[in-house]
Amino acid sequence: MKSNLHHILPRSGVLRSHSTYYKPQIKTFSGTPWRYIRTTGMSDKELSAIRIDRDRLWKDLHTTCEWGKGERWGENATDIGMSRLASSDADKQARDWFVKTTQDLGCDVNVDAMGNIFAVRPGMDNSAPPTYAGSHMDTQPTGGRYDGILGVHAGIEALKTMKDNDMETEYPTGVINWTNEEGARFPISMISSGVWAGAIPLEKAYNLREVGSGNATQKSELERIGYLGPLEANHKANPIAAHFELHIEQGPILEASGGKIGAVEGVQAYKWHTITVNGRDCHTGTTDFQNRSDAMLTAAKLILHSHNRASEAGCLASTGILTLKPGSTNTVPGVVQFSLDIRSKEDAALLQLEETLKSEFSKIAQGEEIGGLNARGTKGRGCTVKWQLDTDSPATTFHEDCIKCVEESVSDMLGTSEGPNVQRMTSGAGHDSVYTARRAPTSMIFVPCRDGISHNPAEYCSQEDCGNGAQVLLGAMLRYDRLRASRKT
Amino acid sequence: MKSNLHHILPRSGVLRSHSTYYKPQIKTFSGTPWRYIRTTGMSDKELSAIRIDRDRLWKDLHTTCEWGKGERWGENATDIGMSRLASSDADKQARDWFVKTTQDLGCDVNVDAMGNIFAVRPGMDNSAPPTYAGSHMDTQPTGGRYDGILGVHAGIEALKTMKDNDMETEYPTGVINWTNEEGARFPISMISSGVWAGAIPLEKAYNLREVGSGNATQKSELERIGYLGPLEANHKANPIAAHFELHIEQGPILEASGGKIGAVEGVQAYKWHTITVNGRDCHTGTTDFQNRSDAMLTAAKLILHSHNRASEAGCLASTGILTLKPGSTNTVPGVVQFSLDIRSKEDAALLQLEETLKSEFSKIAQGEEIGGLNARGTKGRGCTVKWQLDTDSPATTFHEDCIKCVEESVSDMLGTSEGPNVQRMTSGAGHDSVYTARRAPTSMIFVPCRDGISHNPAEYCSQEDCGNGAQVLLGAMLRYDRLRASRKT
Repeated sequence: MKSNLHHILPRSGVLRSHSTYYKPQIKTFSGTPWRYIRTTGMSDKELSAIRIDRDRLWKDLHTTCEWGKGERWGENATDIGMSRLASSDADKQARDWFVKTTQDLGCDVNVDAMGNIFAVRPGMDNSAPPTYAGSHMDTQPTGGRYDGILGVHAGIEALKTMKDNDMETEYPTGVINWTNEEGARFPISMISSGVWAGAIPLEKAYNLREVGSGNATQKSELERIGYLGPLEANHKANPIAAHFELHIEQGPILEASGGKIGAVEGVQAYKWHTITVNGRDCHTGTTDFQNRSDAMLTAAKLILHSHNRASEAGCLASTGILTLKPGSTNTVPGVVQFSLDIRSKEDAALLQLEETLKSEFSKIAQGEEIGGLNARGTKGRGCTVKWQLDTDSPATTFHEDCIKCVEESVSDMLGTSEGPNVQRMTSGAGHDSVYTARRAPTSMIFVPCRDGISHNPAEYCSQEDCGNGAQVLLGAMLRYDRLRASRKT
Repeated sequence: MKSNLHHILPRSGVLRSHSTYYKPQIKTFSGTPWRYIRTTGMSDKELSAIRIDRDRLWKDLHTTCEWGKGERWGENATDIGMSRLASSDADKQARDWFVKTTQDLGCDVNVDAMGNIFAVRPGMDNSAPPTYAGSHMDTQPTGGRYDGILGVHAGIEALKTMKDNDMETEYPTGVINWTNEEGARFPISMISSGVWAGAIPLEKAYNLREVGSGNATQKSELERIGYLGPLEANHKANPIAAHFELHIEQGPILEASGGKIGAVEGVQAYKWHTITVNGRDCHTGTTDFQNRSDAMLTAAKLILHSHNRASEAGCLASTGILTLKPGSTNTVPGVVQFSLDIRSKEDAALLQLEETLKSEFSKIAQGEEIGGLNARGTKGRGCTVKWQLDTDSPATTFHEDCIKCVEESVSDMLGTSEGPNVQRMTSGAGHDSVYTARRAPTSMIFVPCRDGISHNPAEYCSQEDCGNGAQVLLGAMLRYDRLRASRKT
């Protein structure tokens, strides 16, 4: 079989065999002489003895957070949020650090056409694809230091730990930094893993314009910062054997239950829409309520209604963006656009909510009484409502092999997987793992974050929880490597 | 008595006596030889025979609307909106036209420290202040061709008609172009008549910065376009005998009732507030409703509630501006700011509405059930609400003398003031007449505008209605001039 690694490293110019930097050496392990540690030869107990360096992880993470610092929220040196938008100058600095650090570790590092960076530490058999840890280093405009960043750093820490222990995995292992996971600057989230998975066309991703008044596109900015790579952004050309993603929970569940690790079984379904309400501009002082087509008042009703209906259905609905025209205190807005993000654990429930809202939004905008929204005010002339679907992410189910590796790794770390220490969970947020799960066995590892706060400068994950997560990530990767080898024989 | 006119023309350098350009001439009027027409010598019938040139008015108005053209909305040559922000280059062009045109008419033209332009046509007794027509030539960013512009043009047309008819008024008459009435560029409306009336400090007005990202101030821009005048911007230094303002209604009432002219008795009270809702940013997918402090959902409830309460109280409430942070589809906004414009015919009712909303907004934001707003959804962690008062304009009552002159002028024009042709009205919008009314007898004349649309490119007033308004304006000014003279004797 031709080496897949050759496919993902076609133009690096430095295709090194693992023997270049893993000099055969004699050590003893379990009392036996050996050259390097292989997972297949290790017992569970031996595997569990391989420990990451928690201080190094913490230090490295806060070092790279110097690039793209956001708002200060507390008094400690690291009580500062992040504002590292995708393909910004700060993102380039973080990427340069990622490349240098993983190359120094002996990885082959390649960049694909979406700027995704794949750092691969060769194993014994490099004809098969790598087992990856992956996440992202871009942040929300007012984000924190852990969302995405922790997952990438934990992956690097796992590779460092393997090197420190002179381990050689059966198959290659690696770390991925996915581009623009947040969708905060170029407004489709997980867009680059989506292109890799064949779910989003490359041209669509390239042409995506930055939010706000700028003219930069995803492609022009990748080019500008030097991360428009030569590798094809495609799961066939550049396959993944498995994808593990450590991430802060971004919600309150683990903290509330005292859990240390969430073994994530899957991800909520969600859809993002842009809703446009068309009314008519008029003067606020001279136009009585009967004669108005007030797009802002209508939008307020629809936002409230989406919340009410989602509450009833056990789903979520949120509006994070709203713009209006013309935008003058004494002019009733003629046009309002707002984002509507709806989520559910089940695809069917989400579809039902969407259909209900599509039908009822128009009726409410025309003044029909639904859910109390038009019960008390004065009926105006009505507005019209248009829906545009921006993102459709069906519910995702992760791979049982990967979930089990995570659970076993927790047991390795804690000596038990009983009690509240580890619990199976569903992710409320989308992650790059949603797209990798379409093409490769995938699961995620959640660690608690304080008060469930995320997408906020004050997002916080303790050093202990960061370390726990990275330890479990390492263990899951090693166990998966051993599992792959065991199935081959 | 020292001539007041000297006060308002201190630095013009061309202080001409009326005889310079009103050469004594012999004509016959009412069968009697005379030198020039004086209002005191005229019967109602004779007064009503003085007619404006409707075609000239229409042509002049659309000529000046070439400067600062906005969006095209229809197929006719003049179906184009206006975007002539205060002290812009286009505004300078319109001002230059105003100065040249009124100087050519024989007016003394002076500019005060706020850029207000006073064009005065001397009368017989120039020791007393002029009877003015006044309005403004600046527009909203997406405004129309009639709001303000019609009032200035009708004033000029009135002076032209006086000249055409060799009339000499008992007292001086004039036209005022007030600066930045809209408050669209420098965000306090009617600011320059406000300074003139002593209601707004000059320094505050000067330092007002333009909206958006620019650094220009009201003062720097007046200086730039050459309209930072030498005359003191003050009602004592530059008094007004009376102020008549023709304006489109900007609402649907006249059109709905078939009325031709509104004799405006006063102006609604209104207050502009900026409401800030503080919640907490969080991820839309991972944070259940119970754990949210959703500033956008709260703002939606408050906007709807302001509408409902205003409906019940017979008042108006409107939100024309809304901004939120951080502004990302998958982040629940932590901060929302919105404008709240509340209006009532009566100060007491407005105060009552404001107090009710101040009390109830906070309660609703904390999850209390008021008016059905928190009845159906899931209760979250609550938000806080702050109010900031930006503008406070009490109800204005116009002067009965002026209102009567308007009504009589309608009767002159139509032969009757009965029926729906003329009706007394309250203005929903603020106008410069609000401030002149504090210092001089004032009233306004309303004409219908199509569908009540204003602050919109498609704002439209027919040639007939423009002409009717200008004719009534002329008649009211002449009747007021005669009234002043009659009281002196």
